[in-house]
Amino acid sequence: MKAEIITIGDELLIGQVVDTNAAWIANKLNLLGIDIHKIVSISDKKESIFKALEQVDKSTNLVILTGGLGPTNDDITKIALAEYFHVKLVMNNKVLEKIKTFVIKRNADLNERNKQQALVPENCTVIQNSIGTAPGMWFEDNRRIIISLPGVPFEMKEMMNNHILEELKKRHKNFYISHKNILIQGLAESKLAEILEEWEKNFPKDLSVAYLPSPGVIKLRITGKGKNRKYIEEQIENKVNALKNIIPDYICGFDEDKLEELLGKLLKEKKATVSVAESCTGGNIGRLITSVPGCSDYFKGGIIAYSNEIKENILNVNKRNIEIYGAVSKQVVEEMAKGILELFTTDFSIATSGIAGPTGGSKEKPVGTTWIAVAGKDKVITQKFVFGDQRDRNIQRASLTAINMLQKLILS
Amino acid sequence: MKAEIITIGDELLIGQVVDTNAAWIANKLNLLGIDIHKIVSISDKKESIFKALEQVDKSTNLVILTGGLGPTNDDITKIALAEYFHVKLVMNNKVLEKIKTFVIKRNADLNERNKQQALVPENCTVIQNSIGTAPGMWFEDNRRIIISLPGVPFEMKEMMNNHILEELKKRHKNFYISHKNILIQGLAESKLAEILEEWEKNFPKDLSVAYLPSPGVIKLRITGKGKNRKYIEEQIENKVNALKNIIPDYICGFDEDKLEELLGKLLKEKKATVSVAESCTGGNIGRLITSVPGCSDYFKGGIIAYSNEIKENILNVNKRNIEIYGAVSKQVVEEMAKGILELFTTDFSIATSGIAGPTGGSKEKPVGTTWIAVAGKDKVITQKFVFGDQRDRNIQRASLTAINMLQKLILS
Repeated sequence: MKAEIITIGDELLIGQVVDTNAAWIANKLNLLGIDIHKIVSISDKKESIFKALEQVDKSTNLVILTGGLGPTNDDITKIALAEYFHVKLVMNNKVLEKIKTFVIKRNADLNERNKQQALVPENCTVIQNSIGTAPGMWFEDNRRIIISLPGVPFEMKEMMNNHILEELKKRHKNFYISHKNILIQGLAESKLAEILEEWEKNFPKDLSVAYLPSPGVIKLRITGKGKNRKYIEEQIENKVNALKNIIPDYICGFDEDKLEELLGKLLKEKKATVSVAESCTGGNIGRLITSVPGCSDYFKGGIIAYSNEIKENILNVNKRNIEIYGAVSKQVVEEMAKGILELFTTDFSIATSGIAGPTGGSKEKPVGTTWIAVAGKDKVITQKFVFGDQRDRNIQRASLTAINMLQKLILS
Repeated sequence: MKAEIITIGDELLIGQVVDTNAAWIANKLNLLGIDIHKIVSISDKKESIFKALEQVDKSTNLVILTGGLGPTNDDITKIALAEYFHVKLVMNNKVLEKIKTFVIKRNADLNERNKQQALVPENCTVIQNSIGTAPGMWFEDNRRIIISLPGVPFEMKEMMNNHILEELKKRHKNFYISHKNILIQGLAESKLAEILEEWEKNFPKDLSVAYLPSPGVIKLRITGKGKNRKYIEEQIENKVNALKNIIPDYICGFDEDKLEELLGKLLKEKKATVSVAESCTGGNIGRLITSVPGCSDYFKGGIIAYSNEIKENILNVNKRNIEIYGAVSKQVVEEMAKGILELFTTDFSIATSGIAGPTGGSKEKPVGTTWIAVAGKDKVITQKFVFGDQRDRNIQRASLTAINMLQKLILS
């Protein structure tokens, strides 16, 4: 099956909204072995929608559109699709009932705009929206399937997960595609490529590899495509095993693993608790840890010790050490890690102190200089890093590096 | 000028990376009045690049490509462009020198892959990369400009900001486009649309409006296009002023304002300090506040009080209140706000306690129930919200709502 994704909305073309829907849909289709050959973003004008539909490749047999189904006047997709198929819009009573229930549950009144959302082109099969008001629409003729979904990400996802993917799976059985992601921490991309030069040579012809760098982690993706599932899986496994021998110390996870989830799993296994003392990361490590549902089993909390005053008064960092070595130093970050461990009576702790930038650097401590400490009851590991010039990247790199350091300490 | 953006990379088509580059470039071009009519994402195969270039609209006179210029074997753009233009790749010594300097600064050795990055198609003008190794390339004939940039976001941005935008501005002077964003907090999208029905009618013909909802804030965007700058600006101003009269209490900012930046500005003006006591938001409010450079002027830090034990022992929340009312209650969140204000000796504070989900709800307190308190020296405002079912959205909505509540308290 060959697919194309069309995302609709002026907000995408003027760059006010990042198109996360396309990536999410692409990922889900890909897991079914459906080949996405193009993603197109267009304006929410009728003419743009017509043109995009006309320009769909002849051999494409699945088109998914998102956006333009809301209750406001700039939402035009439904009208455009009715015109495209030369059909009328008709009131769908089941949708209307759903909308009524939805609105009443939220203690609001049903208004005219809500009602209009129950109008759909008469040739479509309606996909019910259980968490919002705009219905999805499934069109199908002998050429292809066209599916129109809301642009609101969680409504679109709900429809994909509970209706569409299952239906598409039934229609697409002959082709196998598999990905394996290897997460790598602590190596620059070009250094990694150099180390892996031999490994990359003689790649089996059904397999390919890609480097996907992001702040703090490089994802190495191996993709295999073909009809023989077993053969593909074996080839991928061989390459992964070879990789484990080449860079054992830098592999920090696989596939959709997130460092914060891996740490959480490990802490649960050990029935251990953790706390954080964050200076330069400002709460971001806490945010990452608490992004994992169920984290209250192991996360007690932490101190965001942004000012030196808080480091001294709450975390019991020695004032003299701050004066002599500065707040961004081995001595201070170690005391922060020990301080929070004691104060919050946890088994493990993480502490950060750095110069996130864009200003505040010096010759000895340039912007990006970051000290990280991780502590258990009888050991502390402290390490210095010099990240880059960008505040947001530095914060994220420091956070993920710290989480990975604690994981290593627990496993050591 | 009519533009198209082509982003290259299998990672986009299989949904492993969200295309933030396209949005960023679109935004920048749009501010110059350049009309982006399509964004296309394609695979990093030579054939896909050829096809995409062939399918560019005849009337398009600017194409910006990103991606596929890295040091690894899956990076093919440069080779594809040389073939497309029927020219050779030649070594650019200036680029090679830059790469050498760059690599030496990082205490690494210059390897063969780094050197190959200095090869460019002989018909291009090189755009130097001051923060990375891959050069950008500017191609131009009598039909159009084609620009190829690295996919690494901060390298691409640096080249756009320091070279390309200035050059494009010189070539595009006759058309005016203007956007005004109004940020709205505390109203659902359909409710807002209902209130604004009259305001939306009789919109001047050169103006349009769009609703851009995100967790915690709805952005209302007014766009004006035309040749008469003064006229467009006046029309937009009239509509904004009308809006200020209709929903004065819900407007929380304009244009690229971020709530955390507005709060920071206000605190700086008042020479006041703030601290946070976060339960359900788990550090996210701290992260937002510290995402603003210079926040150390007003942010002392906070406590992530995820467990009740920490609420009691560190924040001095009355144990009896947690037993009687539960951790997610008016009483507890108020004590948290007061507790952190005192402990951190700040002028203002924010506290949150809620059920972020996906589990942990009850009939009385369903998932999404969140108490927020903001405090100054002599006043506390506490409010209950029932957000939705989604953990990440609940956390973000609670965080932005809390920041806005504090801003209102300070201004009241």
